[in-house]
Amino acid sequence: MLVRASEGYLSFPMGPAATTIMNFSAGPAMLPPSVMDRVAAELRDYRGTRMSVLEMSHRSVEFEEIIRGTEATLRRLLDLGDDWSILFLQGGASLQFSQVPMNFLEDSLPPAAYAITGEWGRKALAAARIIGEADAIWDGGPEYRSTPHSLEIEEAAYLHVTTNETIHGPQYPQEIWSSDHVPTIADASSDFLSRPIEVSRYAMIYAGAQKNLGPAGLTLALIRRDLLDRGRAISPMLDYRTHDKAGSLYNTPPCFSIWVTGMVLEWIEAQGLTGLGEANTAKADLVYNALDASPELYSVHPEPRSRSLMNVVFRLRTPELEAQLLLEGREKGMVELKGHRSIGGLRASLYNAVPTSHAQALADLLGDFARRHG
Amino acid sequence: MLVRASEGYLSFPMGPAATTIMNFSAGPAMLPPSVMDRVAAELRDYRGTRMSVLEMSHRSVEFEEIIRGTEATLRRLLDLGDDWSILFLQGGASLQFSQVPMNFLEDSLPPAAYAITGEWGRKALAAARIIGEADAIWDGGPEYRSTPHSLEIEEAAYLHVTTNETIHGPQYPQEIWSSDHVPTIADASSDFLSRPIEVSRYAMIYAGAQKNLGPAGLTLALIRRDLLDRGRAISPMLDYRTHDKAGSLYNTPPCFSIWVTGMVLEWIEAQGLTGLGEANTAKADLVYNALDASPELYSVHPEPRSRSLMNVVFRLRTPELEAQLLLEGREKGMVELKGHRSIGGLRASLYNAVPTSHAQALADLLGDFARRHG
Repeated sequence: MLVRASEGYLSFPMGPAATTIMNFSAGPAMLPPSVMDRVAAELRDYRGTRMSVLEMSHRSVEFEEIIRGTEATLRRLLDLGDDWSILFLQGGASLQFSQVPMNFLEDSLPPAAYAITGEWGRKALAAARIIGEADAIWDGGPEYRSTPHSLEIEEAAYLHVTTNETIHGPQYPQEIWSSDHVPTIADASSDFLSRPIEVSRYAMIYAGAQKNLGPAGLTLALIRRDLLDRGRAISPMLDYRTHDKAGSLYNTPPCFSIWVTGMVLEWIEAQGLTGLGEANTAKADLVYNALDASPELYSVHPEPRSRSLMNVVFRLRTPELEAQLLLEGREKGMVELKGHRSIGGLRASLYNAVPTSHAQALADLLGDFARRHG
Repeated sequence: MLVRASEGYLSFPMGPAATTIMNFSAGPAMLPPSVMDRVAAELRDYRGTRMSVLEMSHRSVEFEEIIRGTEATLRRLLDLGDDWSILFLQGGASLQFSQVPMNFLEDSLPPAAYAITGEWGRKALAAARIIGEADAIWDGGPEYRSTPHSLEIEEAAYLHVTTNETIHGPQYPQEIWSSDHVPTIADASSDFLSRPIEVSRYAMIYAGAQKNLGPAGLTLALIRRDLLDRGRAISPMLDYRTHDKAGSLYNTPPCFSIWVTGMVLEWIEAQGLTGLGEANTAKADLVYNALDASPELYSVHPEPRSRSLMNVVFRLRTPELEAQLLLEGREKGMVELKGHRSIGGLRASLYNAVPTSHAQALADLLGDFARRHG
């Protein structure tokens, strides 16, 4: 196996202590083991069909059941009525950065308002400005350590927020916006369904699946139907109405990702969003408390109020100590702890499927490392 | 299990004769059993990492090896040099219908020229006309039974062809165009890598993976680099140059589909394109010969010269006989033989992974059925 220890990537020589792999990847990320059990069990024979979902027509009765069942689970989870459209799309949040303004910016409307709390919000605004008029109404750059205290918008085509920023690590502690006057559109790629949400505060929520929801290659979009009447047709595939009318079967969707995501959604339903939110808070507390206990060694990037429950972004006193901690983590089976290349440092992603025991093991390592190097 | 026999879909009560499932789906379609063996074997532990590719960061060393290895296999298969860019995209051919004109139509250029040999070409032209100027220079509609004898284009932004049409079943018997004067862009979704191709006749080839190449959710695009300099930036994600510069890792790609497709490409390389083309011709001959042997019962949709080797589209004398044949096929384990809902009749898709034995079994059924009902 390749070893590129300096990169802090996955590959590493397995130490005898590494009996369990603890995957802290920012995405694609760990899936619930019980879902992986189901994938493995049904991989070559989906429910007696003797066929894999990988090989199954998207027009088959079985796949219709899969996609409609996945949609139904999501509707139950968030208590969504028929006034919401649920779309299964492709291209990740990055394509939504263009698709949202293509559909919802109009010359007759005021500019869109973007609240920029990190790199992804910045990219969303840049993509919107190619399409039409859009303003940054709040910008936490270039450090991106915080989130706004309030977002009172009187007039805009829409307000765009990024609920959690994976690279710098700020997350809105609460939903401080409403959709009463201006429709709020949220990129919730990295914290969707990680805790309860107030659906009435949004007009649209979109999320790449590869954090809390499933494998890469699927983007979920929830759109309040009254918004769908807006907008221009630039391309059948980029027009949300095309997919709404076709039940996301206008063309071949990413079938396998939808199947796996459907099972993850059932797992989320079994946990409950309240329970998941409490578990995610407890996991993050374990790691942040360990970091806060040794301020001479560790510094957390975001301000306390805006610390992400999903991505714990922090630095050590020196790059040498960071490399040493990554190495010790790898020896214990902890992988993908290196920070994003644009900011450096370390990042532990604690999405839904990461068990408390992994967060505890990381907290233990952080404490032990501080005793030896603090 | 649901039974909706009238639809001719997958679901059916398994008869005792159905020991093997023969999947004739038009896509997503059968994958090579040896590839499914590898997927099953490595699903939960990719090469000793104790992690699934479903859970693996797209920035990991392992995934870098997967995507670069997949690209390298494709380059070897088609002997592609550095003057060709290979992109791993999302959204299927349907998104390419818009993305191609967004990138390659310019006001300073003459209109694009589209040769329409079926429903997919028609959709490609309609999507292009939203973006800029495009003409149908040949149109086989509304019956779509044939392909043009020649395509001599003096002047156009590009020529767009659909090498094989899955719904009506015409396929170009040869590559009758060149890219010497006008760049030829081919939607080869349903016959890419099913036989040898002359790369020099194309400036761009794109293909959804879910026919001959792998699971749904991945689109391959091969683009001659000199074309990439053209075009306007409408969206970073829709600009081919974005993905070219980033090695298709601008954002999270459909990792699992790329992994499986990489293994299918290795399988294709082991067969050889010449061998695969011969095998595919032999498979199609078996079925067409059985149909031609009973003209009083069967009629093939496309004219003989343009019959697809991939999708055999045919009708029976009456709808009742068609339903009876579908039922008898299902009893023998043959699934997905119903024609596309827009044209009716039957369709047998014989992509790379369908073994000769399945084509033979279908030919046997067609002959036997004709003896009883002819």
